[in-house]
Amino acid sequence: MSLRVGVIGTGVMGAEHARILCEETRGAHLAAVADTDPGRAAAVADGAAVFTDPLELIAAKGVDAVVIASPDVTHGTLAHACLERGKPVLCEKPLAATTAEALALVEAEVALGRRLIQVGYMRRFDPAYGEMREARLNGAIGAPVLLHNIHRNAQAPEWFTGAMALTNSFVHEIDISRWLLGSEMLRADIVAGPGGEPLMVTMTTDKGEIVSTEVFINAAYGYHVHAELVGRSGTVAMAAPALTATNRAGTHGHGWPNDWVPRFREAYRRQMRAFVRSVERGEPAGASAWDGYVASAIAEQLAQAFAEGRSAELRLVPAADLYR
Amino acid sequence: MSLRVGVIGTGVMGAEHARILCEETRGAHLAAVADTDPGRAAAVADGAAVFTDPLELIAAKGVDAVVIASPDVTHGTLAHACLERGKPVLCEKPLAATTAEALALVEAEVALGRRLIQVGYMRRFDPAYGEMREARLNGAIGAPVLLHNIHRNAQAPEWFTGAMALTNSFVHEIDISRWLLGSEMLRADIVAGPGGEPLMVTMTTDKGEIVSTEVFINAAYGYHVHAELVGRSGTVAMAAPALTATNRAGTHGHGWPNDWVPRFREAYRRQMRAFVRSVERGEPAGASAWDGYVASAIAEQLAQAFAEGRSAELRLVPAADLYR
Amino acid sequence: MSLRVGVIGTGVMGAEHARILCEETRGAHLAAVADTDPGRAAAVADGAAVFTDPLELIAAKGVDAVVIASPDVTHGTLAHACLERGKPVLCEKPLAATTAEALALVEAEVALGRRLIQVGYMRRFDPAYGEMREARLNGAIGAPVLLHNIHRNAQAPEWFTGAMALTNSFVHEIDISRWLLGSEMLRADIVAGPGGEPLMVTMTTDKGEIVSTEVFINAAYGYHVHAELVGRSGTVAMAAPALTATNRAGTHGHGWPNDWVPRFREAYRRQMRAFVRSVERGEPAGASAWDGYVASAIAEQLAQAFAEGRSAELRLVPAADLYR
Amino acid sequence: MSLRVGVIGTGVMGAEHARILCEETRGAHLAAVADTDPGRAAAVADGAAVFTDPLELIAAKGVDAVVIASPDVTHGTLAHACLERGKPVLCEKPLAATTAEALALVEAEVALGRRLIQVGYMRRFDPAYGEMREARLNGAIGAPVLLHNIHRNAQAPEWFTGAMALTNSFVHEIDISRWLLGSEMLRADIVAGPGGEPLMVTMTTDKGEIVSTEVFINAAYGYHVHAELVGRSGTVAMAAPALTATNRAGTHGHGWPNDWVPRFREAYRRQMRAFVRSVERGEPAGASAWDGYVASAIAEQLAQAFAEGRSAELRLVPAADLYR
Repeated sequence: MSLRVGVIGTGVMGAEHARILCEETRGAHLAAVADTDPGRAAAVADGAAVFTDPLELIAAKGVDAVVIASPDVTHGTLAHACLERGKPVLCEKPLAATTAEALALVEAEVALGRRLIQVGYMRRFDPAYGEMREARLNGAIGAPVLLHNIHRNAQAPEWFTGAMALTNSFVHEIDISRWLLGSEMLRADIVAGPGGEPLMVTMTTDKGEIVSTEVFINAAYGYHVHAELVGRSGTVAMAAPALTATNRAGTHGHGWPNDWVPRFREAYRRQMRAFVRSVERGEPAGASAWDGYVASAIAEQLAQAFAEGRSAELRLVPAADLYR
Repeated sequence: MSLRVGVIGTGVMGAEHARILCEETRGAHLAAVADTDPGRAAAVADGAAVFTDPLELIAAKGVDAVVIASPDVTHGTLAHACLERGKPVLCEKPLAATTAEALALVEAEVALGRRLIQVGYMRRFDPAYGEMREARLNGAIGAPVLLHNIHRNAQAPEWFTGAMALTNSFVHEIDISRWLLGSEMLRADIVAGPGGEPLMVTMTTDKGEIVSTEVFINAAYGYHVHAELVGRSGTVAMAAPALTATNRAGTHGHGWPNDWVPRFREAYRRQMRAFVRSVERGEPAGASAWDGYVASAIAEQLAQAFAEGRSAELRLVPAADLYR
Repeated sequence: MSLRVGVIGTGVMGAEHARILCEETRGAHLAAVADTDPGRAAAVADGAAVFTDPLELIAAKGVDAVVIASPDVTHGTLAHACLERGKPVLCEKPLAATTAEALALVEAEVALGRRLIQVGYMRRFDPAYGEMREARLNGAIGAPVLLHNIHRNAQAPEWFTGAMALTNSFVHEIDISRWLLGSEMLRADIVAGPGGEPLMVTMTTDKGEIVSTEVFINAAYGYHVHAELVGRSGTVAMAAPALTATNRAGTHGHGWPNDWVPRFREAYRRQMRAFVRSVERGEPAGASAWDGYVASAIAEQLAQAFAEGRSAELRLVPAADLYR
Repeated sequence: MSLRVGVIGTGVMGAEHARILCEETRGAHLAAVADTDPGRAAAVADGAAVFTDPLELIAAKGVDAVVIASPDVTHGTLAHACLERGKPVLCEKPLAATTAEALALVEAEVALGRRLIQVGYMRRFDPAYGEMREARLNGAIGAPVLLHNIHRNAQAPEWFTGAMALTNSFVHEIDISRWLLGSEMLRADIVAGPGGEPLMVTMTTDKGEIVSTEVFINAAYGYHVHAELVGRSGTVAMAAPALTATNRAGTHGHGWPNDWVPRFREAYRRQMRAFVRSVERGEPAGASAWDGYVASAIAEQLAQAFAEGRSAELRLVPAADLYR
């Protein structure tokens, strides 16, 4: 009765998903891993089957559900394979390398008539974001009017190029803003700082709210995500993500992690648990394929508008009933 | 292969342990519950067997390990029954109603020649306390000289009487102080505030460190546990236990819980996981029967000294090799 | 040798300036007050001469220097009168009701060949803003790339109309941003929230830095000004403006003032001290007439661009040597 | 009409008092300085008369009031000289080198029939302590039951010997505790950490409140004073004494000063202003000679009891009507 999960890709995130499945997830276990580097796969397999071909993992009888954590360009093809086999899949963000590909997945799911794809926008499972959303829902701050987001990486990965600050980093902000506000984005503007960084993105929603986001992928001092939701009667913001503070050598303070894994460890854990439960119960959880398409579509339109030095009027295809 | 766990007592803590077993613990499941009130037991059983006699639960073949969360006076007898059956047991603190009874359990375990008892001093699994201990171990603050503890309850439970602020609340501070410092307590003094509350307890350790603890079980504003460890080159303290902060109605701030369950939810989860792993691996985890005896012995000696208006020179029997 | 200062206008700010002169300023005293309401003037006079005609106060032999705190529309005329009499003047912001009027003051000062006007952009004397500027100057955060400003009033004054969120509130942000960064603003965009509030203003400077400012004049919960300066190697931000924090009724926190006077009390005190010293030493201090013109000019151009739904390319007349 | 103040002693504190008189105090000016080192005196004189004999300064016609900031052993003699001349005096703490000497000053003042001595327990003028006291007075936290004090110096001055952690540092805590609570101390116990440091002092008051104080004069990381007042319905505590916070090099935080001058700069300014006003109005302000005696008496009795390894039952002579 334990869900047999196969993990594709055993880089940083794939290894973390495998660890979560092995150590922290009730009702599921790591049944298989796939990586083009079989040594790396074996290192995280912990007794699970090892594949070099991810499609074989997807097809395997001993695999009930799939986690895709391979490079972004492979997401679309692999997610399609999962749909074809009728296997639930938790796909790391972005859902696909292009909006067209993401939309094709949405259409495939609609054709299938049921939701099998959960996109790994794990922030939806972060307890701090959860409290912020709850503050909106329970009226604690009045009707939202403005959302501030700050997204800072210590340094961009080496493989970051061109518009990836938008298509790889800012997509998180798009998804979490939609989820926090329960709104759709209509329009966006970007301003870049000296030498191209940081970016300030200003979006407006279908309810007239403003979403103002800093994206600074070379902020040097550490990995830091912050948000404040402003309502008509108050605001709610993340507190410092620290359990302890020290006094040492003339200063009081706490440390920043170097990347997102420590900051969102609990979110990843809860996301996996929600994925497993959603399979058990047949009820979708987390970000849908549609949500994945929307984040990618907005990021892509923004990147193009930015390159052309104009505002972006955001356009989305209508959402199918499956996602309502 | 999943550990079959029986939970005795289905009050606040027993129900929480049962929930953690059902929802959050990998490698184990809730196999049985016992309560003198079978209706209450059934409400948390979630399909598990229901007993009204806890000794029957302990004896049951379908139960591999036991969690004792029944009233304090029952702990000793039930823990003995577990030892007799050779079943690992996670016993809520205090280990027993009296020091003599706690010591008898230690002796029984020593006679048995192996450790089966883990005492539910869950703070050892709290991530904030963990960071504080780590700061000591990695030298971040230099050699410890002083530990400040603050223990505030919104209001004492109705059934609190007499010295229970010491024997029921302060025992947590004894255990966590020993664990944070890696020291044994030698001497203690108590001063009481106006009308008997709060208590300020000052202990000194075998390394000369001071442990200064406020115990205020009617602090009114909420449940609040705080600690600061002072070393020769710096200090480490708990940060505010809040994920978000709000601005509303002229104030900035965050809320306090009304009791300890939200504050230590993660600690309880990790404690259970450690218990299950310790059974799997045959390696003890958390507070031992010896630790349980020490906390109770110190609290009892303190209570007596306080009643007699004198300092307490703390006396412990020597620790058996089993606990070294 | 004590500087004889006359205060024009005895509303909230005029009364505060008078109090500061009477109680907190060394080397100066309150010599005269003027108000169209002589009763109100008398109430703050504390023995000083009372005028109903501000021009008479400016002309009075017993007045060495003037503070203008009367309604905005009177600033220009009264400042001109000070220049004509050769009397140093601390003029509340904005310097004048229109950019044209502010520019005329600049030109009059240039024609005079010396600086007599200090504009009451008191934030330049706020210790927190001072620390932020110092962090830029001493390299603590690397080269600035982005400045976040938040400007929240509990509620807009009744007399606020139309573009006053820009011309009366946002002018503070323009001035402090120029001072913090040592940069000039080149371009600006505004987005308004639902129903017109709050405003998010995004400016870029001549060094390519971004200045992102929230202006929310009906934020309900209190008066709250915040800023964070982001550099290439770190950031510096205001800490919570609170001396103490309370635990009460389930919450931890501190209060917000209802208006700006408590938040900037020390800044007002230091501003007056700097004004008096600048007169003593003949060395200008604080925001100049030129700075006053710039803030008003940018606000006015922004308001017009916002009304027309376009970006504002900011245009300023060249600064005279007097202000370099 | 400006009060002519003479400052005796031009070390760290004397120089700061002189600066405050020259730059920050309305209604008074620095009329004279005295120091056995005339060069050091001249360096802070700023045009004021320079004396090498402090008694000559006290006797000088051009001196209306005196500030004593010379070494502790001189305080008693110099304060007596001020009383003999009928000159108001702000005397740095401690009031005298011994309790007997402090009591002699009290008796001299009583014989004189009017209060001329203000003791420099400047914390009474610190805005944070002021808010804490106000929270008691306005009922915000209910009846006080416990006061936590923390007093940490980066390192003890070279000239600190023996009991000076009590007689020189802890005296501040005695005075501010009496002032915060409006209570008198009855009994005290001290426990020392490993190697003699830090000290934890537990006092109880005539209302039954507990005052628990850490004194750590070699805390290494910086100068840090903290207090929390616990009442029956809530608590009030000092917030972090920082105006800004930085993110840099993997950490978030703020700095600590190396000594007390930056932390209490505003308190020293307000204390001087209160002293000048009290002379103008003939109304005593701040800590009286009696308060100075009490702090010294308690510290001395504590030091003796500590040396003898016993509790201190604190004994004070009755307060004369002059101090009620």
